[in-house]
Amino acid sequence: MSHPRGPLSQLRRGHEELVLGLLRKHGPLSRGELGKRCGLSRTTLYDILAELVASGAVVTATSQEAPRGRGRPAETLTLNPDAGQAIGIDFARRALHVAAVNLAHEVVGSASEPHDADLPWEQRVELAVRLVGSLTGTGTGALRLGALDAIGVGVVGVVGSQHAGEEDRHAEEGRDQPEPHPAQVLLRERFGVPVLLDNNTRLAALGESIWGAAAGGQDVLYLRLSHGVGGGLVVGGSLHRGAYGLSGEFGHITVEPGGARCDCGGTGCLETVASIRAVLDAYRAAGGRAADVPELVKAVRAGDRAALTLLGGVGARIGEVLAALCNAIGPSVIVIGGELAETGEALVAPIERALRDHVMPVSRHRVSLRRATLGEVAGALGGIALVLHESPLLSRYPAGPDLAEDPIPDKESR
Amino acid sequence: MSHPRGPLSQLRRGHEELVLGLLRKHGPLSRGELGKRCGLSRTTLYDILAELVASGAVVTATSQEAPRGRGRPAETLTLNPDAGQAIGIDFARRALHVAAVNLAHEVVGSASEPHDADLPWEQRVELAVRLVGSLTGTGTGALRLGALDAIGVGVVGVVGSQHAGEEDRHAEEGRDQPEPHPAQVLLRERFGVPVLLDNNTRLAALGESIWGAAAGGQDVLYLRLSHGVGGGLVVGGSLHRGAYGLSGEFGHITVEPGGARCDCGGTGCLETVASIRAVLDAYRAAGGRAADVPELVKAVRAGDRAALTLLGGVGARIGEVLAALCNAIGPSVIVIGGELAETGEALVAPIERALRDHVMPVSRHRVSLRRATLGEVAGALGGIALVLHESPLLSRYPAGPDLAEDPIPDKESR
Repeated sequence: MSHPRGPLSQLRRGHEELVLGLLRKHGPLSRGELGKRCGLSRTTLYDILAELVASGAVVTATSQEAPRGRGRPAETLTLNPDAGQAIGIDFARRALHVAAVNLAHEVVGSASEPHDADLPWEQRVELAVRLVGSLTGTGTGALRLGALDAIGVGVVGVVGSQHAGEEDRHAEEGRDQPEPHPAQVLLRERFGVPVLLDNNTRLAALGESIWGAAAGGQDVLYLRLSHGVGGGLVVGGSLHRGAYGLSGEFGHITVEPGGARCDCGGTGCLETVASIRAVLDAYRAAGGRAADVPELVKAVRAGDRAALTLLGGVGARIGEVLAALCNAIGPSVIVIGGELAETGEALVAPIERALRDHVMPVSRHRVSLRRATLGEVAGALGGIALVLHESPLLSRYPAGPDLAEDPIPDKESR
Repeated sequence: MSHPRGPLSQLRRGHEELVLGLLRKHGPLSRGELGKRCGLSRTTLYDILAELVASGAVVTATSQEAPRGRGRPAETLTLNPDAGQAIGIDFARRALHVAAVNLAHEVVGSASEPHDADLPWEQRVELAVRLVGSLTGTGTGALRLGALDAIGVGVVGVVGSQHAGEEDRHAEEGRDQPEPHPAQVLLRERFGVPVLLDNNTRLAALGESIWGAAAGGQDVLYLRLSHGVGGGLVVGGSLHRGAYGLSGEFGHITVEPGGARCDCGGTGCLETVASIRAVLDAYRAAGGRAADVPELVKAVRAGDRAALTLLGGVGARIGEVLAALCNAIGPSVIVIGGELAETGEALVAPIERALRDHVMPVSRHRVSLRRATLGEVAGALGGIALVLHESPLLSRYPAGPDLAEDPIPDKESR
């Protein structure tokens, strides 16, 4: 199902997804039934069906219940249950995570593997192919990758709108085509399908909003407290990128004017207070001993006073920032992820207190604060969500409850 | 063009808008030409065309260049230039503003009238009808309201997603149908078309992003410094509402922990520092004399030291808040509106300085700070934009540059 991605193919892909959506909802349908329900002309529909069958996304079956005396038995069309629709890959700094869904949008598996931070892209992609193979090569849930729709990829760092989504789109829009990301080039060569790209922390936000702590949330703020402090916004159910792909840089909001120098070039950023290194350094400065987050978690669980006081202060800073963002953006759910969230209530309770204190009173009981639940595969799952969201069915046709009522045109189409 | 608003009519309206979009781009087209370009079945297309002609949105003409010897001269279809597509009405606290566009999306006029703050809704709507009449009743740009698609309305206060958009939609989604806003009920009775509703400050954000200071901006942050301090976000070209319609409450971000009590119930909110009253009070406390904003503007222009120092401090606070929001949301344009923006560079320069100081260095030269340009009709224009954005053509089909390349299906439709 790899097409050129012009406006024409956009419309075509919209039609394809309309047909797939009807088959997803109704199960097997004849060409005639599909024609009645989709409102497309016969020529367009048959053309679309031919391509869907050729790609392996749709399979044909001869109905047993066809009226015998009246010509050929009716052929029905159905989704190929073995066809993979999307793969998500998170190229994190020191590990690789993959996940896959089938055409019914069911997550059929995920896998992770750590690696050195300096592993070259060729080898990272090799590793990705191997991990994807582990999801698809064996077992009953095995996927046929021939019908793969697209791959969603998370990477570290700023991903502007010039990279985000699909690389081919830009030339058509008359913009300068940017250098594609090496992961895009290599994966596209390998799988022959579009490769959608975004920042992996933002993708984790999207993943948590669909399969994780904020499942079903349309307006979600995700904050990751890790080696860096960042996050992502889901707005109306879609990933928010901002004008230059710089959305979600919560870690660089000033919390201490004139404070410590930050890697971004600024001073007093939230990251200088709430990153793993900042917290461990402050803990040591307060006389505590913790080489890493698990040791800090241990100290917290043991009721260590210095650790609790420190996290109380850090949580208050985080909560103030979240309150400001809540007033501006109005999310229904805030998700706290990253390794530092493992410190649990010692951090989350002061965050919540400061959030309630500083958010507009009218919002106080509307926004819900939760810890992330997807762990390290959140980004890979977000990559899959990116693919599903780029699907014209989900983004441009009325989806979900609307489709459930069947877009049958007023009169029969020919 | 008033239909029931179910999923079926959503799809139907998408088809209507597809046809209108083709006529908008190409001018007169025959039924056959339209059929080739739109990819709809003949039955669906003819049905849609019949309704568009009946509503007055589209008119038929007999082409002079039709081949004589070969049957009837070809009838062409074209947009009715007199058909109004949308009206925007801003029910501000003490004034009413209206604006209208035709089917070509050209703003054909606007009008305003002040009134008492306690004017009942019935009389406000009467006033609105009269002002709309002044745009449509006379003159060469007169609109036929028969083809009106919808009315977009701005009101003061929180407008949640339960009110925003169209009132009929909710019952279909199986949610509790909320009490509709009186303006919705009365206008719907009067005009017989859908009435879309949103907060008028948010609508001003949308208006500025389409016709004003941020024209063409897809990611815009609008801050209004008036009796209240608020604003709105445009995200990917669409108005952002947030989960509970609470997006854009920038005035209630804490800037002085433990500071002055705010009307929202919090303390130290930006509004307690940067509203008209707050600024005038602070100016008087500093020994200045200004009964209102025009007098303050006069003092600023005269180089009054106290006024300049005060606005320098207020601007710094505003800039810090905007920097935090920039890092989180990544807009390309920030628009400063409201009466206090009339103080000009005395306020905008310190805002800009604090913004540059506190935004991530990588964003410093990417975001552009501008004063609003639409004045008091921004909200009414935003109401129109709301109608155009709710149009399935603009929101669900590929719009603009995509449509410009003609969505002709691969093969001819019958």
